[in-house]
Amino acid sequence: MSADNRRRIEVGELRVPATEVTLSDGSTFQLYNTEGPQGFDPRDGLPKRRQAWIDRRVARGDTNFSQMHCARNGEITEEMHYIAHRELCTPELVRDEVAAGRAIIPANIHHPEMEPMIIGRKFLVKVNANIGNSAISRSIDDEVEKLQWAVRWGADTVMDLSTAAPIHETREWILRNSPVPIGTVPLYQALEKVNGVVEDLNIEAYLETLEEQAQQGVSYFTVHAGVLLRAVPLTVNRVCGIVSRGGSIMAKWCLTHHKENFLYTHFDRICEVMKKYDVAFSLGDGLRPGAIADANDEAQMFELAVLGELTKRAWEHDIQVMVEGPGHVPLHKIPENVHKQMELCHEAPFYTLGPLTTDIAPGYDHITSAIGAAVIAQHGTAMLCYVTPKEHLGLPDKEDVKAGMMAYKIAAHAGDLAKGHPRAQERDDALSRARFEFRWEDQFNLGLDPETALEYHDQTLPQDGAKVAHFCSMCGPNFCAYRISQEVNEIAAAEQLVQLGNKPLSPEEVEAGMQKKAAEFRETGGKIYQPVSS
Amino acid sequence: MSADNRRRIEVGELRVPATEVTLSDGSTFQLYNTEGPQGFDPRDGLPKRRQAWIDRRVARGDTNFSQMHCARNGEITEEMHYIAHRELCTPELVRDEVAAGRAIIPANIHHPEMEPMIIGRKFLVKVNANIGNSAISRSIDDEVEKLQWAVRWGADTVMDLSTAAPIHETREWILRNSPVPIGTVPLYQALEKVNGVVEDLNIEAYLETLEEQAQQGVSYFTVHAGVLLRAVPLTVNRVCGIVSRGGSIMAKWCLTHHKENFLYTHFDRICEVMKKYDVAFSLGDGLRPGAIADANDEAQMFELAVLGELTKRAWEHDIQVMVEGPGHVPLHKIPENVHKQMELCHEAPFYTLGPLTTDIAPGYDHITSAIGAAVIAQHGTAMLCYVTPKEHLGLPDKEDVKAGMMAYKIAAHAGDLAKGHPRAQERDDALSRARFEFRWEDQFNLGLDPETALEYHDQTLPQDGAKVAHFCSMCGPNFCAYRISQEVNEIAAAEQLVQLGNKPLSPEEVEAGMQKKAAEFRETGGKIYQPVSS
Repeated sequence: MSADNRRRIEVGELRVPATEVTLSDGSTFQLYNTEGPQGFDPRDGLPKRRQAWIDRRVARGDTNFSQMHCARNGEITEEMHYIAHRELCTPELVRDEVAAGRAIIPANIHHPEMEPMIIGRKFLVKVNANIGNSAISRSIDDEVEKLQWAVRWGADTVMDLSTAAPIHETREWILRNSPVPIGTVPLYQALEKVNGVVEDLNIEAYLETLEEQAQQGVSYFTVHAGVLLRAVPLTVNRVCGIVSRGGSIMAKWCLTHHKENFLYTHFDRICEVMKKYDVAFSLGDGLRPGAIADANDEAQMFELAVLGELTKRAWEHDIQVMVEGPGHVPLHKIPENVHKQMELCHEAPFYTLGPLTTDIAPGYDHITSAIGAAVIAQHGTAMLCYVTPKEHLGLPDKEDVKAGMMAYKIAAHAGDLAKGHPRAQERDDALSRARFEFRWEDQFNLGLDPETALEYHDQTLPQDGAKVAHFCSMCGPNFCAYRISQEVNEIAAAEQLVQLGNKPLSPEEVEAGMQKKAAEFRETGGKIYQPVSS
Repeated sequence: MSADNRRRIEVGELRVPATEVTLSDGSTFQLYNTEGPQGFDPRDGLPKRRQAWIDRRVARGDTNFSQMHCARNGEITEEMHYIAHRELCTPELVRDEVAAGRAIIPANIHHPEMEPMIIGRKFLVKVNANIGNSAISRSIDDEVEKLQWAVRWGADTVMDLSTAAPIHETREWILRNSPVPIGTVPLYQALEKVNGVVEDLNIEAYLETLEEQAQQGVSYFTVHAGVLLRAVPLTVNRVCGIVSRGGSIMAKWCLTHHKENFLYTHFDRICEVMKKYDVAFSLGDGLRPGAIADANDEAQMFELAVLGELTKRAWEHDIQVMVEGPGHVPLHKIPENVHKQMELCHEAPFYTLGPLTTDIAPGYDHITSAIGAAVIAQHGTAMLCYVTPKEHLGLPDKEDVKAGMMAYKIAAHAGDLAKGHPRAQERDDALSRARFEFRWEDQFNLGLDPETALEYHDQTLPQDGAKVAHFCSMCGPNFCAYRISQEVNEIAAAEQLVQLGNKPLSPEEVEAGMQKKAAEFRETGGKIYQPVSS
């Protein structure tokens, strides 16, 4: 399998990226590409291809740089054109969905290395990968490597959740090397600014943190402004209480001071920072359920209503908003989550963590949650935050990041298929045709992970010849259902009951089939159709 | 983590198995157990604990040994009592569901080593694991080891799909060492009897094979009697044609002879064999879709209607029946599969392979299909046939069998939760409470795979102390949401807004909380509630 059969290309003046797969018949198939420009030294960072577009808007004197602000003024930005190419839709659809608040383009003007993408339920379902150091594990190189690894496997955005020094420097390295929008939870760094003492948190330290991170180029902030003082008591009889870090911090702040959440009371000051850089809100669900038993409870639904109120307040500033969601939810309660969110949050894009559909499989929560993620995507969730096998147990390493990404690219695509996204099924059909026609390399290259598929095939049939063998590695030569099925097609075709595949038969094929048929005709004693006994 | 904290027990006169988990407070929690009696030499096989029950029915002169026959005569067999203990339901429910054909108890009277279990949508969702050699890989020891491995991880039934010599001997070893019902596809061995020449297949060779396998103790046969001559042309314009081995073999037989499927025309002779041993039908879906593009098509629905007709014919003999289902189906088309099957097959239990919800992830089809399996279980499928990561690529090894089992135990449990099975959520809640209270070992022992959970936790926090640490291995000591959430509970509890968890507070807890509160009261300048600004 040569690397040339699957490579990143950049199309047109905007240099819109795609993965081009060259099939064995020489035709090509394009896949959505997130890995970014290759071959640049991390110390230099990626090329700043958005810079000219941003400079133009600075030069004309914009003060609100939000894509929503442009969209509402009827403008189709370069980012919107770029996205229309990636999503195979019209730039007008992109603009109109952003203007209506049904989609967001996280695109901080200080992140010129970023390749624009869109999050909204009329577009491809997106996947976020979380990385970031902690007091237990810290290394800048590790985090940049995890970033590159995550986008290689299809991460559409990456959240840097670092909580340990050097937070600022780690984030800088990540941003300068990221082709995808970066999100953060500024509360973590704000807490570091007050030496980790929750009670000492205050709006000034928080705003200072927002400015710092916005200037670096972070494209969306998780803000836990929905955790209200009066909502906290709703969580105390839960099986798992409050499982969101930010949510638990703000709940403790509210109770210890007995004051309303300062992120809520000072929300408009926060908005002023966001619009200067076009940072989008990811309104945090600090009270999301952390156990099956707590799903869709009063605390969760109360907070969701508050997030709907905050969505409207942000929109008054033309600031882009998405809303975060659960968590842990059994299958039968998932649709209600999406429908309530659309209703209470005025169709702002929904961004969910999983949800996990059961709590009984520590070590396999990428799977317990991929099930929920696929179903919640089917019902309209716009972006899925991945979960790795280490969830609840430890910090994900590279292999965990890949395992989480694979599970979530599957969930997102299953959602796209169920929603009937025009681009989705083409790929399934192309791969299935390759499978039926024993084009093994095409099958591998059209898949999410060609290396693993090839490796598994080699374990059973290592010979090179097997890559063109006309039988499956499961059944072996005598039993291959595909092979027999192809013979069935030939026979049936020869009888002109049907055509072979969708191609008309050549005269030779028909002749060959007819001769075969003639022989059978004699064997079966001249009777073509037997009466069907019952 | 000591092995004594999680062990197999056998309860009562019937020796009904369970996995007993001893929690850190000394209380115990019971889980469904499939691993069978331990410590027996494979050369001796497992103890024949059902033998006395069977002998009693032989002694009284039964000729039709089917559990359905007993149920319809109002009898509650030992197997039904045993199952009622495992499922925590009444034996009457077991009998009535079997009598109505809505559930089956695969229990060949020649498999006395087997621990009775039930397949029906009012009971726990079950999982089947496929094993078996092929021309490419053959070893009896491997297959017995895979069997023991599969049941250790929760396989409720196992299908032996061996297609290479020594088929008979391999199956004998598997049966004598299996605590779960064994299913087969007799067509494979029948084909061997005619030297692999599909055209030479005939009902005599097939019946001879059924007798041979039934005498060995196989509890259900996949019979592809629904692949009718006139249905075959419906498949030829498919993207993936016919992907069922048995289906493709019978389709080729039908077309080459231009005769109706002999399994269909001689169905009543097949029934005569089944009832002598209580072998259940697993009516094969030889025309199941093998690609997203082919889901719910005419060929699939035509065959399903034929399987419904055959279900009624089998029931006339009091023979137990389940019906096999797809395959490859996008999420939005899954409910229709279940509802059509219930309607056309008169509520006979549905037994589905996956379905895979997308074709684009070779190497990860245990995940693409676990998503579909969970959703189809939620809608009423009674048993799920697992898919391993090697699907479409190669033959599963031990690790693949485990990966497939884990994904499918998750899918089955997610389905049980969604259906509201009374036994399902207890386990999630017990594990989540352990998680919230930092009882790490309890969390691991209540999970599907304690070894892996422990291993992952150790990778981040290897110290023994970490197993009792009051913080998470993700966040570290400063940030643990659970820890802060517990503090929030204490504060709130001290304010008597609520109670801590579900336990009333001790006077000491209240006093401690009140003192803490008093200090805060002074700090916050005497104002308990601030007005909520908006």
